[in-house]
Amino acid sequence: MQITFLGTSSGVPTRSRNVSSVALRLPQRAEFWLFDCGEGTQHQILRSDLRISQLTRIFITHMHGDHIFGLMGLLASYGLAGSPTHIDIYGPPNLKEYLRACERYSETRLSYPVRIHSVEPGLVCEDGEYEVYCGRLKHRVPSYGYRIVEKNRPGHFDAAQAAVLGVPFGPLYGRLKRGETLTLENGKVIRGADLCGSPQIGRKIAYCTDTIFFEGTIALAEDVDVLIHEATFAHQDADLAFQALHSTSTMAAQVALAARVQLLLLTHFSPRYNPANATTLEDVLHEARSIFPQTKLAYDFYIHEVKNRSQG
Amino acid sequence: MQITFLGTSSGVPTRSRNVSSVALRLPQRAEFWLFDCGEGTQHQILRSDLRISQLTRIFITHMHGDHIFGLMGLLASYGLAGSPTHIDIYGPPNLKEYLRACERYSETRLSYPVRIHSVEPGLVCEDGEYEVYCGRLKHRVPSYGYRIVEKNRPGHFDAAQAAVLGVPFGPLYGRLKRGETLTLENGKVIRGADLCGSPQIGRKIAYCTDTIFFEGTIALAEDVDVLIHEATFAHQDADLAFQALHSTSTMAAQVALAARVQLLLLTHFSPRYNPANATTLEDVLHEARSIFPQTKLAYDFYIHEVKNRSQG
Repeated sequence: MQITFLGTSSGVPTRSRNVSSVALRLPQRAEFWLFDCGEGTQHQILRSDLRISQLTRIFITHMHGDHIFGLMGLLASYGLAGSPTHIDIYGPPNLKEYLRACERYSETRLSYPVRIHSVEPGLVCEDGEYEVYCGRLKHRVPSYGYRIVEKNRPGHFDAAQAAVLGVPFGPLYGRLKRGETLTLENGKVIRGADLCGSPQIGRKIAYCTDTIFFEGTIALAEDVDVLIHEATFAHQDADLAFQALHSTSTMAAQVALAARVQLLLLTHFSPRYNPANATTLEDVLHEARSIFPQTKLAYDFYIHEVKNRSQG
Repeated sequence: MQITFLGTSSGVPTRSRNVSSVALRLPQRAEFWLFDCGEGTQHQILRSDLRISQLTRIFITHMHGDHIFGLMGLLASYGLAGSPTHIDIYGPPNLKEYLRACERYSETRLSYPVRIHSVEPGLVCEDGEYEVYCGRLKHRVPSYGYRIVEKNRPGHFDAAQAAVLGVPFGPLYGRLKRGETLTLENGKVIRGADLCGSPQIGRKIAYCTDTIFFEGTIALAEDVDVLIHEATFAHQDADLAFQALHSTSTMAAQVALAARVQLLLLTHFSPRYNPANATTLEDVLHEARSIFPQTKLAYDFYIHEVKNRSQG
């Protein structure tokens, strides 16, 4: 699984950071998902090594413009890239009305079905390999964080060894694969568990923005490999964070610590922390690391490869 | 007057061309106007030498997404850049409803008044130095071209020479400035016209997109210094132009020729004419020049300085 940050600024774009969007490329599939879609997200995709035609799902956290104003342009362009079958979009209840209004006023005729799903806390979607959950965050408008869970895969079944042990070809293999213990006609006892490698634990990611520190976020992020959390403000600007219901560096780190995540990636930075100012993003990073050392700052086009834990 | 192209692609952005927007910087004023506002226009402004805080008017030609999807993001960012007093937006009747819907769904609270004006053919706005007119174009949805007219300025009045000729200080100077002929008390006849330099003829620009070839465009563009006209397609793809009600290179050139303009700047190019294809934008340029030699192709961040004709 590969995370690509397409926009890491809060509110407004800067010369080096676009507004919010994160892409998640799925392994073994020519497919990626998008989380939020600020203005210019399609432009960022053009500049990345992602191919817009491989986009299948879009998850929206909340209705603020810096998270949704790129959606209609992206949907319009998507229809012209290849021959899309459909796209699924998940988000707050009024997302559907917003998109229908944009379509109507701009007389955009999308050439493929757009299925818009209103999310509620709990399971949002599922397929053979993944489950996506959402949970409420705490912001000025209804805001939802997402938890992406790759399902565990059974360990490798050693069919050659089963044959050596005299297991006849046929349905017994399936039972052994599931870990059952069998007694062959000759009385030999075969334990399926001995023939199966250890199962591959699925990877888990949480995407939490926009929100102030909130208990519910900890549950959503529990034990994930990567927590992507907003850190709009430095610790010294906590008053601004409380006013706007955004997080500081230290709030994000506290969530990471409490949720026992493997890695915290900070994003959604206020443009005020540019290198010319007294407080910079280096300070934001140090503040977070003082609480949760496994922290990194995201930047536009930063790619993070999420490995299986056994792979290190 | 300085024209800056911020987007020159039709329909979708490419790696090198954004969707439609053109800025017009006004001389002697810390002010610029915008014509159309496709997605990513605010990003292009960030990369140009324009300052978003100097934007005062936005003119929208029609409601297609590649001309309006950057508007809400730009208005939101504009409120955070300096302390804007207000902004005036001119466009089709349903532009106001569209913007109000976007504001409502995204819960955007603009900190300054946005005055949205529905245009009809004729005078759109006027101040001491400029008049802007609009006229209908011919496209799949109601589309309006704009004609920007700088008012003529009276020639320089030679007050020193008037004094030498014995004109007493006072209201007579004003009459002479207006070109009147006076007889002084001593019987001397003074011709105001002899004391005034030749008037400075104002510059004129027309912005015509999206449209197929249309007689009305010729009137709108008559005798302008610069005609900015769409040329979505090459001549060989005229069938596509007729289907989509866009212009070919040669249609744009015919308008320029019939309207006796000084310079034709082509824009709004289909992404199909990229250098890897059999037909390129060089062909589009040559086709237009075969009809109207004073033609150039616009590109993103191309700046054209519109000089007074007497300045050459």
